[in-house]
Amino acid sequence: MSRPINVHLVPGLFEPADLRGGVAVVIDLLRATSTIIHALASGATSVVPCGEVDEARRLASQAPAGSVLLGGERRGMKIPGFDLGNSPGEYTRELTAGKTLIFTTTNGTRALIRAKEARRVLIGALANLEAVVELLAEESGPVHLVCAGTEGRITLEDVLCAGAIAHWFNLAADDADPSDDATQLALHLFASCGHNYDRAYEDRVLAILGRSRGGRNLIDCGLIADIAVCAEQDKFDIVPELSRDPWEIRVARKKK
Amino acid sequence: MSRPINVHLVPGLFEPADLRGGVAVVIDLLRATSTIIHALASGATSVVPCGEVDEARRLASQAPAGSVLLGGERRGMKIPGFDLGNSPGEYTRELTAGKTLIFTTTNGTRALIRAKEARRVLIGALANLEAVVELLAEESGPVHLVCAGTEGRITLEDVLCAGAIAHWFNLAADDADPSDDATQLALHLFASCGHNYDRAYEDRVLAILGRSRGGRNLIDCGLIADIAVCAEQDKFDIVPELSRDPWEIRVARKKK
Repeated sequence: MSRPINVHLVPGLFEPADLRGGVAVVIDLLRATSTIIHALASGATSVVPCGEVDEARRLASQAPAGSVLLGGERRGMKIPGFDLGNSPGEYTRELTAGKTLIFTTTNGTRALIRAKEARRVLIGALANLEAVVELLAEESGPVHLVCAGTEGRITLEDVLCAGAIAHWFNLAADDADPSDDATQLALHLFASCGHNYDRAYEDRVLAILGRSRGGRNLIDCGLIADIAVCAEQDKFDIVPELSRDPWEIRVARKKK
Repeated sequence: MSRPINVHLVPGLFEPADLRGGVAVVIDLLRATSTIIHALASGATSVVPCGEVDEARRLASQAPAGSVLLGGERRGMKIPGFDLGNSPGEYTRELTAGKTLIFTTTNGTRALIRAKEARRVLIGALANLEAVVELLAEESGPVHLVCAGTEGRITLEDVLCAGAIAHWFNLAADDADPSDDATQLALHLFASCGHNYDRAYEDRVLAILGRSRGGRNLIDCGLIADIAVCAEQDKFDIVPELSRDPWEIRVARKKK
């Protein structure tokens, strides 16, 4: 049986029930899923994604003192009174290890909620590209790459990351079927960067990220350095996974 | 003032009111808009797009005998009792000249209806690429390239054609702004074909069309020859335009 790879260019382009039985990878490259991966790689015990700022504050206030960090952004910037923003580089081992991260971003959280009926919901970015591909190859069933987008609009950076996952998964799994048109579109975008991990490849990835909606927003916010951090590939060998009950993200596995 | 180029990968990704004040180009490359262009280039006086088969039959029955042709498809095939299907090559001068074409296809008609609030609604395909670009360059305001898709899903062939229009319009108009992420995605797809109109370019266009959702459907229907006809570029120098009252498509202009 073949394993369809479905790239969903924005969450609104699929119905939640379409993902049942499949494995979803939620991608919000700039920056929510990159930051979640960094936080867990730095030793956070779990990440609790919240849709609303007030909900995040309430959850944090109910936790034992010193056990949680409040992180996230609105309009790209740190939320007043929060410990940390949404820059992956902020989540150092020193600040993060052993803590629960209560985390709120707009688009990434919405994408997670919409993907929650999949059999497994993984967290992907360039930072853990190879680890995600390896886990997908060991799994069965259709693969759904869910691009978070921005306020319902397509963002090029998420499509590029989906294209990278689709490309390597297609090579890793004999039964992968990348014929879906949106998947082909993402594969063409990724192919425009070349497949050799050389300096020219990195430059082309950075050029696409810098021109994307998410990249332009970060540049406007003075956060251009975050683009370079989120572009770093295979920095970590973990795959975070959303558990639905309790609603939290933990490390599903380390790469072998 | 800059002129944004917005590629809408499927009609569901924009609200009808978003197009007000702009110029829309509706694209259903395989095959509705290619066929409409062929019919008008062969001398049809106008094309009346209908959403429903019964509506098309009713309109045809009210017209003077011999003045109309009934054309269109369901599931890719000619509709029982209709004069013609949806293959552009069927619309010869001999059969078509001087007639009104009552035409029904599913996705193309839906896209036209959704685009109807634009200031102008043009019909585009590879068959009239240069003529569309020239008209857009003489116009003002945002450009909306509306990909018809199939049943709400993205089809690669429409995105490729949108990418071609966006590329050449961007070169033709000093004030064009192709920074929209979906537009960049379409431009990357088109760029993968190369820009030299040589044999390799044609082969790459045909390869993309043959692998696209619309292309695979045509191959399954035994209509592979239609793909080659729809891939022929700049075959005609006309731009069809939808008038809203009466609801019909006529030739807006011939290329200078």
